[in-house]
Amino acid sequence: MSVKSKNLTWHEGQVSRTSREELLGQKGVTLWLTGLSGSGKSTIAVAAEAALRDQGRLTYILDGDNVRQGLNSNLGFSPEDRTENIRRIGEVSKLFTDTGVIVLTAFISPYREDRDQVREIMADGDFLEVHVSADVETCESRDVKGLYKKARAGEIPNFTGISAPYEAPEKAELVVDSGAQTVEESVAQILGFLQDKGYLKA
Amino acid sequence: MSVKSKNLTWHEGQVSRTSREELLGQKGVTLWLTGLSGSGKSTIAVAAEAALRDQGRLTYILDGDNVRQGLNSNLGFSPEDRTENIRRIGEVSKLFTDTGVIVLTAFISPYREDRDQVREIMADGDFLEVHVSADVETCESRDVKGLYKKARAGEIPNFTGISAPYEAPEKAELVVDSGAQTVEESVAQILGFLQDKGYLKA
Repeated sequence: MSVKSKNLTWHEGQVSRTSREELLGQKGVTLWLTGLSGSGKSTIAVAAEAALRDQGRLTYILDGDNVRQGLNSNLGFSPEDRTENIRRIGEVSKLFTDTGVIVLTAFISPYREDRDQVREIMADGDFLEVHVSADVETCESRDVKGLYKKARAGEIPNFTGISAPYEAPEKAELVVDSGAQTVEESVAQILGFLQDKGYLKA
Repeated sequence: MSVKSKNLTWHEGQVSRTSREELLGQKGVTLWLTGLSGSGKSTIAVAAEAALRDQGRLTYILDGDNVRQGLNSNLGFSPEDRTENIRRIGEVSKLFTDTGVIVLTAFISPYREDRDQVREIMADGDFLEVHVSADVETCESRDVKGLYKKARAGEIPNFTGISAPYEAPEKAELVVDSGAQTVEESVAQILGFLQDKGYLKA
């Protein structure tokens, strides 16, 4: 063990983001997947993560499962709480990105302004908006979780795409046409983008 | 590139914490440093991080600099807000630990109940309470940031150790006597503990 801290004062010698990225062989980045319920955000995030793991990359998925029950367990579904939900997820993504992790977030995040505010707090190139784009008819025809049926029956109020708006990205770094292409094709598209843009070191 | 996602359904094949820990050669853990202002929490966290980086470990420090201005920028210093501050930091630490990162938090976190609630949400062995223990006289004599002087002058209300209580841990995994030993000795103590308990793989 080598302890090189003899001359340390406050914050001198702090391990940098660059040092962590060198260790990991990758650049930290947040892939912000946005799209309707049933568009395939989680499926694509999980598949992309598996493919990245095969390459030895460190990733982490933020989704409803690990955020709504933990960090954001004290938030409801009012407009204010939805905005705060996305804000906190953005701040946590920023911390993970600073660690050098490739973060994949899988939230409907229907409001352009909320997503733009996340983009705003992050450095250029750290935030990649990925529009997982399948139209509502396609998503409803899948209805993997039976949510559209419930929404049509009026059992879920303010359901995005049915009784609440989805504001599609206007400047997404990537549009993944999950209505037309397979999960494998979507994953290849995302990994190709990361490779081309230099996020994945050899 | 190998994409092994042909048979993916929702969440099947998700990359596990174990897989990430194998990749990193370490176990995810949160070292929760608690102690008075000026006790040396940040100094020790920074020095421990440098020593761990020398071993090729992935670490991340959560402190006032990156949390109070970001995730918790909408919190003040009322008792409720202080509790919520620690709660959110705990939840974020949990996510980082799940990623396989060695997290070092450096917050005074004076209330036992708040710290115990963080311990509560984490799995056994994932949360290590590290009491950075220097008495108030020692911390005040250092007064690195000039805060004690301001507190004595009444310019900072509810200052821990002066006009607000510090509830020392009763079951800390580690007590680092930063009043008596050097930063190097404190770092060696922490790294020795991590090594002995199997957090650092060969």
